[in-house]
Amino acid sequence: MSELLNKQNYSGLFAALGYVFKNTDLLKQALTHRSANKNHNERLEFLGDAVLGLCVAQMLYEKFPSQPEGKLTRMRSNLVKGDTLASIARELDLGSLIFLGSGEMKSGGHRRDSILADAVEALLGAIYIESGLEATKLCIAKLFDSRLAKLDPNIQIKDSKTLLQEYLQSRQLPLPEYEVTDISGKDHAQVFTVCCTVESLSLRESASGRSRRIAEQKSAKSILEIINK
Amino acid sequence: MSELLNKQNYSGLFAALGYVFKNTDLLKQALTHRSANKNHNERLEFLGDAVLGLCVAQMLYEKFPSQPEGKLTRMRSNLVKGDTLASIARELDLGSLIFLGSGEMKSGGHRRDSILADAVEALLGAIYIESGLEATKLCIAKLFDSRLAKLDPNIQIKDSKTLLQEYLQSRQLPLPEYEVTDISGKDHAQVFTVCCTVESLSLRESASGRSRRIAEQKSAKSILEIINK
Repeated sequence: MSELLNKQNYSGLFAALGYVFKNTDLLKQALTHRSANKNHNERLEFLGDAVLGLCVAQMLYEKFPSQPEGKLTRMRSNLVKGDTLASIARELDLGSLIFLGSGEMKSGGHRRDSILADAVEALLGAIYIESGLEATKLCIAKLFDSRLAKLDPNIQIKDSKTLLQEYLQSRQLPLPEYEVTDISGKDHAQVFTVCCTVESLSLRESASGRSRRIAEQKSAKSILEIINK
Repeated sequence: MSELLNKQNYSGLFAALGYVFKNTDLLKQALTHRSANKNHNERLEFLGDAVLGLCVAQMLYEKFPSQPEGKLTRMRSNLVKGDTLASIARELDLGSLIFLGSGEMKSGGHRRDSILADAVEALLGAIYIESGLEATKLCIAKLFDSRLAKLDPNIQIKDSKTLLQEYLQSRQLPLPEYEVTDISGKDHAQVFTVCCTVESLSLRESASGRSRRIAEQKSAKSILEIINK
């Protein structure tokens, strides 16, 4: 691995982060997946997740001084979710810098969202360890700047159940009813089927998913698709 | 409310926190439930939750340098869960200091776990706003010190499903099977009934709860009670 550990390879990463690592062992650990080495990045990821959570919370708290907690929470979930972190990892070209075991390497681990997202968190954890909160906050601000600028608490993406509820409420119609109508399979392979009924519109749609929550969202989405046709 | 806002009333709180608030408006906001006033503590709670998450994560990261991420995560959940925060609120005697609307007051809101836990988080968020991370970390260390000292990553409290699984694995017996056997009620008032079967011991116990997860845990607990008799 040592040939990867010269500054040349990391100059792009350092520029994108706006941060130059002093401790290359720590940097290496942050980029090491558990499949590669026992000195891997999971503990740093644990810390990085928490640092990211605080920094994003504070950025939202300051940027939206009059938004209620619920909207801040939703915006935060959106910013720190795996998808977003994986996109950031791709912008940083992290895939080519992550150390993976041979099995993961062959199966395309460099491109896997979860591995990429975890490495972003681990990097932030490492920066926090090395240089503290303010330095990490600056990196996070740099990484999330464009996403933060695009956030609008009022036009953010809402889940289907919320959209359906708002649609009905705006028309002063009663709320939809969700009912689990079937469960098949055993243990954690169970599949839930939920029926969403909107009496007032004579609509009834069923959908299945691995949890009640997922099935509910899918059934609400079906109803919305009919409404919006 | 103003009679409550003199230092006399807060001296016990300040001593227990090891922190004296400079900004009494901020302190008052941290202790104001949404039922009392529109300038309530939910945004501070949002921030405090994140600050607490980071500080506890870092304390565990440093205290247990060789524990894997999974154990750190479990210990953190245990430390920051509502139950724990509500206990801390009671130690701080926060109930008597929280501003509640008259409805909440009558229905015993001062004693409700969620209101107490939220106020602890809001206080931490307020300290972070007023004095930054290091000051908040000191307060959190003071509040969590005895709980942190008692933590042992290897003998921590495990949930019933984990305990049952470990019991069976240690005897090389097959894992239990969980199956949802009934769902009653509608929407979010649904009650799940789960049956836990341990074929190898000819044991089968059912239990109900507001989610599949809760019902599974309760059924595993019933099986364990029989095993441990």
